Amino acid sequence: MALPYNKRVDIIRGSPTRKIDAIRERLAREGRDIILLSTGAPGYPPPRELREWLAEQLMEESTRLYRYTPTPGIMPLREAIVEELARFGGPKLSPENIVATAGGQEAMFASLSVVLEPGDEVLLLDPTYFGYQPIIEYLGGRVVRLPTSMETGFQPDEEGAKKVFEEHRIKSVVIVSPDNPTGRVITEESAKLLADLAVEKGAWILIDEAYRTLVFERENPWVFNYAPDNTIGIDTFSKDPGVPGWRLGFVYAPEWAAQKIRMVSEELVYCPPSFAQHAIAWYLTNEEVRLKHMERARAFLRERRDAMAEALAKYLPEARFRLAEGGMFLYADLESYLKGLDSEGLSRLLLEKASVATVPGTYFSENGGTSLRLSYATESPERIREGIKRIAEVLTNL
Amino acid sequence: MALPYNKRVDIIRGSPTRKIDAIRERLAREGRDIILLSTGAPGYPPPRELREWLAEQLMEESTRLYRYTPTPGIMPLREAIVEELARFGGPKLSPENIVATAGGQEAMFASLSVVLEPGDEVLLLDPTYFGYQPIIEYLGGRVVRLPTSMETGFQPDEEGAKKVFEEHRIKSVVIVSPDNPTGRVITEESAKLLADLAVEKGAWILIDEAYRTLVFERENPWVFNYAPDNTIGIDTFSKDPGVPGWRLGFVYAPEWAAQKIRMVSEELVYCPPSFAQHAIAWYLTNEEVRLKHMERARAFLRERRDAMAEALAKYLPEARFRLAEGGMFLYADLESYLKGLDSEGLSRLLLEKASVATVPGTYFSENGGTSLRLSYATESPERIREGIKRIAEVLTNL
Repeated sequence: MALPYNKRVDIIRGSPTRKIDAIRERLAREGRDIILLSTGAPGYPPPRELREWLAEQLMEESTRLYRYTPTPGIMPLREAIVEELARFGGPKLSPENIVATAGGQEAMFASLSVVLEPGDEVLLLDPTYFGYQPIIEYLGGRVVRLPTSMETGFQPDEEGAKKVFEEHRIKSVVIVSPDNPTGRVITEESAKLLADLAVEKGAWILIDEAYRTLVFERENPWVFNYAPDNTIGIDTFSKDPGVPGWRLGFVYAPEWAAQKIRMVSEELVYCPPSFAQHAIAWYLTNEEVRLKHMERARAFLRERRDAMAEALAKYLPEARFRLAEGGMFLYADLESYLKGLDSEGLSRLLLEKASVATVPGTYFSENGGTSLRLSYATESPERIREGIKRIAEVLTNL
Repeated sequence: MALPYNKRVDIIRGSPTRKIDAIRERLAREGRDIILLSTGAPGYPPPRELREWLAEQLMEESTRLYRYTPTPGIMPLREAIVEELARFGGPKLSPENIVATAGGQEAMFASLSVVLEPGDEVLLLDPTYFGYQPIIEYLGGRVVRLPTSMETGFQPDEEGAKKVFEEHRIKSVVIVSPDNPTGRVITEESAKLLADLAVEKGAWILIDEAYRTLVFERENPWVFNYAPDNTIGIDTFSKDPGVPGWRLGFVYAPEWAAQKIRMVSEELVYCPPSFAQHAIAWYLTNEEVRLKHMERARAFLRERRDAMAEALAKYLPEARFRLAEGGMFLYADLESYLKGLDSEGLSRLLLEKASVATVPGTYFSENGGTSLRLSYATESPERIREGIKRIAEVLTNL
């Protein structure tokens, strides 16, 4: 007989990309070579200099790399993060504002645990990353969506934003910029619009800056600078320098909120991985290695973004998409090719028939039934072109 | 103006050892050399062979070590854990029963999140590790304590256990063996007593086996084997092989419960640290390295335990304690020396006046006002003796 348990956990349905990964792994075991246009994990390892340094440290007969660290992270890491934020035009903070976490996921979970009470309404732009809604709903919150459109560059529109704040008691906004899935970087105007509304209405803004340094056309604005009492920044080292599996991220927040996030984090994980903390503190303070790697990462991604955009224009000329301003994804509307098939069906078909992994738009938006998120994070430009060509072939044969 | 937040987080008061760490760090900055009898982190690094292997892997131009992994861990790790449990006489399971986690802390948080509903009563032995109560209370549960005593070797007594199950609706038992703080290893009889009660009453048992392989006199029994439908095992690689900062642990549980714990874990951290997973999979499957390291760790701890016990007998002959059967701690009752001072006051005095860090018994027990937890995990035998001598000096001068 199964014992009683907390039914709340059944709210969690599991990450859709995890389901795609499972099919992908099965196909890989069957010897199928899958073109991976589904992942947010970068195709480059972290810089060689960092790995060499770390390999040296491992040879020391000391427990330094292995010990528990303070819950909010070792002081050299927190100081390096303070420095990092200031250097890139962000807020001027102290280590007391910083809580290092076991990745962006734990940063978001701990922050929302502090912010949300059961029944609270949380505003998400639509489309947006599928990872926020399960946390919000697991914590008893309710999601309100503000639709954005390709025509207006996936920026929140002023009238719509004001209306949603009037019609709902929004406790917090959660946004990501550069965006997952659209690659949109919010404008200074959008940042100020949301910040002003949050201040006026006494709401929080949680801004996920996972792709902050991976921008191509212009810099990501700093929401925190517009609303320093209302903003919690969520950041990660998963994308730059490229260690998603190492699980290191951080939160920056008003000091009192940072202290509460730290308390929750202590219960969740006790401390973030020490190994990653030492490595990233080294990375952030070795400016030459760091800037070179950032440049290389941006060039790597820009080349692949451009290859993908060109392939879409060539093989799927009726696909509608915007060139990503940052991050790792294009979000392509394939409506005119679909003949009634929805994007979930298409994504499954692409994986089974054409060995191309993608993520359907339905995971990001109520209106995502004709769109796919296409990642250019990891495959070579040649394989990206080949992937798009195969998508076109499948669509032609519908 | 501070924004509204979820007051539930204020239940969390912060780990008491973290507060001791803070004082200790301040004193260290003042140039004071502190004898560390407070920590549960081992004084040995992981085996050199493991570090050499990892250093080699870091030099590969691949993203293998850096990628996200499946939420419950990479398959080689889960297979190695299955093998490990069977090899040491534990349950015979499949990888579907295993969820690797970001340390024992996340394993406990995720498991209790699945098990507990608000208002549920949770049985803890008394004394016990101070880390359980904050999680239980944060999740809305209530703690019921079953006192144990030095006279009966800190084993749960049958009559008391039956009575507490009659008087309360216990949803779950949480126990740790080898024990933190007393070093007690539960007997087969105790394991069976609690397992039978759990099965009879439809309760869960969460058994924290952090120090499982670090036993001196006899093996830790396997509660799971007595109650396989009711038991969740919580384990960690923090103590053996000695990488507490790397944040890798695991849960083993009935398959349906493991699947739910995995879902919660996905929301908490997405996946455990990848480099730790690769390293520990290697460690568990390289039997020679593994067994040699375990032997060394046990000899390291046994030598220090014996040094501490001898020093207590020499310098504090009226101290009452049992020789630890496993783990990293002695739990010493100093009542006859205290002259009305309680253990919190004593612990503070020891740190400030004698540069010895200890943990007061009040953190483990309602009746801990005359006891200290003394760790032999990290200092040399000489420094352990010196630490006990200094404690005796402070007590003599009260």
